[in-house]
Amino acid sequence: MRVIDTVGEMQQQANLWRREGRVIGFVPTMGYLHEGHLALMRCAKEKSDRVVVSVFVNPTQFGPGEDFERYPRDLDRDLGLMASLGVDVVFAPSVENMYPQGFQTYVEVLEVTRPLCGAKRPGHFRGVTTVVAKLFHIVKPHVAVFGEKDYQQLLTIRRMVQDLAMDVEIVGHPIVREPDGLAMSSRNVYLSPDERKQARLLSQALAEASRLVEAGERDGSALVSAARKILAQGPSIRIDYAELRDAETLEKMGALDRPGVLALAAYVGQARLIDNAVLQP
Amino acid sequence: MRVIDTVGEMQQQANLWRREGRVIGFVPTMGYLHEGHLALMRCAKEKSDRVVVSVFVNPTQFGPGEDFERYPRDLDRDLGLMASLGVDVVFAPSVENMYPQGFQTYVEVLEVTRPLCGAKRPGHFRGVTTVVAKLFHIVKPHVAVFGEKDYQQLLTIRRMVQDLAMDVEIVGHPIVREPDGLAMSSRNVYLSPDERKQARLLSQALAEASRLVEAGERDGSALVSAARKILAQGPSIRIDYAELRDAETLEKMGALDRPGVLALAAYVGQARLIDNAVLQP
Repeated sequence: MRVIDTVGEMQQQANLWRREGRVIGFVPTMGYLHEGHLALMRCAKEKSDRVVVSVFVNPTQFGPGEDFERYPRDLDRDLGLMASLGVDVVFAPSVENMYPQGFQTYVEVLEVTRPLCGAKRPGHFRGVTTVVAKLFHIVKPHVAVFGEKDYQQLLTIRRMVQDLAMDVEIVGHPIVREPDGLAMSSRNVYLSPDERKQARLLSQALAEASRLVEAGERDGSALVSAARKILAQGPSIRIDYAELRDAETLEKMGALDRPGVLALAAYVGQARLIDNAVLQP
Repeated sequence: MRVIDTVGEMQQQANLWRREGRVIGFVPTMGYLHEGHLALMRCAKEKSDRVVVSVFVNPTQFGPGEDFERYPRDLDRDLGLMASLGVDVVFAPSVENMYPQGFQTYVEVLEVTRPLCGAKRPGHFRGVTTVVAKLFHIVKPHVAVFGEKDYQQLLTIRRMVQDLAMDVEIVGHPIVREPDGLAMSSRNVYLSPDERKQARLLSQALAEASRLVEAGERDGSALVSAARKILAQGPSIRIDYAELRDAETLEKMGALDRPGVLALAAYVGQARLIDNAVLQP
């Protein structure tokens, strides 16, 4: 496994592979890997000949007062995990390498980034699309794998790729969960033991909504209320948003008359966690 | 010469060439070709094995009330010129193909697009960078050639390519002029015979400033005033801007103590023309 930390070297490696006819699979991460990331890598491996994983805590997707500084990092541990998985190249650039003096170019997706995390974290998705576009130009993947936990991010990336005709296949991978249902996240490390117990209420809220849909409920407010009621059982939980939205456009939907996504964001203590479930009418 | 009008076919052709190890040269145009465009194509031909020219009047770089509708178009004539020059592929997509329903992604360069045409034509450069980024993803060039007449555009594209690590070499080509000095432009067709005569005052204004610099003048206001005085000789000329700016960053400069660009934009009758000269201290 090769570790590359400059843009030029990574592009050279990608160009070489492409000339050889290799299919490049890519998983962009912010490191501090968990089983969810590893699942994305296995998926990328199945769909390609060479797998590149980037490890880069991207400052432009964090707002002021967010957790950029304290975001957990452990590159040595990450490298061990990736080596044992058979990752070919880890691209781990410095912030200075990705955003040199004078940097002033951004990629922005409009409508689909407006609600949910886009409303709560201004500038977040602009940071995500900018860094992902740049990483695509550097790694030159044929296929890139993203987790469905970051559902709005996945839709946003799909939209960017389609709108700008990036020749990359975007694959979404189902959410990987802990045995008790908590969606895997690097930010779960922020949870105290008591908060960790409460955190499973997010997936339980989604499960309750899914159960209601199966029982015939189609009213959006009823589904959201049921989810909120479950979350309210956690004394350390503060809901950031809980909404039912069109699964493709993220537009508001009053009734589940087409595929919808029930999207949750909640602070559990200091940790802001997100989770979602796609609901079929 | 092959004419391609869909994104998918163009990418397929580009992928094929790249697998064969061909170097792809690219000249993006809005058509209605003149000798300036042809010079860019000859330049691209020298630097590559296969030349692609796009012909696309890009609606997103025109503001409300600008000349998108009446912008001159003559694809048949353009095709004849390109065929005789040995262009390999003309990419001429429809507006619907480039901006399908739901399009919502933009590439934006900040500081360098703020003054000059960026101030006078809000949204113009966002349209330029978005379409050029998309064209780069479609045509997959190794090298792309842009004219220096659109000086701010060239700087903006260079900045975008560097910031987003697009693996494309950007080549600037000197301004191609009519025998009397008027910079070649598709918009020159808007000029009446009388306006056409006055239009040469733009290049004369730049020449006068250059002459002053050679004579030792370094004061920015003096250089700009001299240029304005020449332009004032044209009764149909209305200056949009006339400014001396840093040739790299486009920041204001009071004195020519480093390379500067004297940038002019003026309406000559209905036609908005631009021209510039890089001045060395």
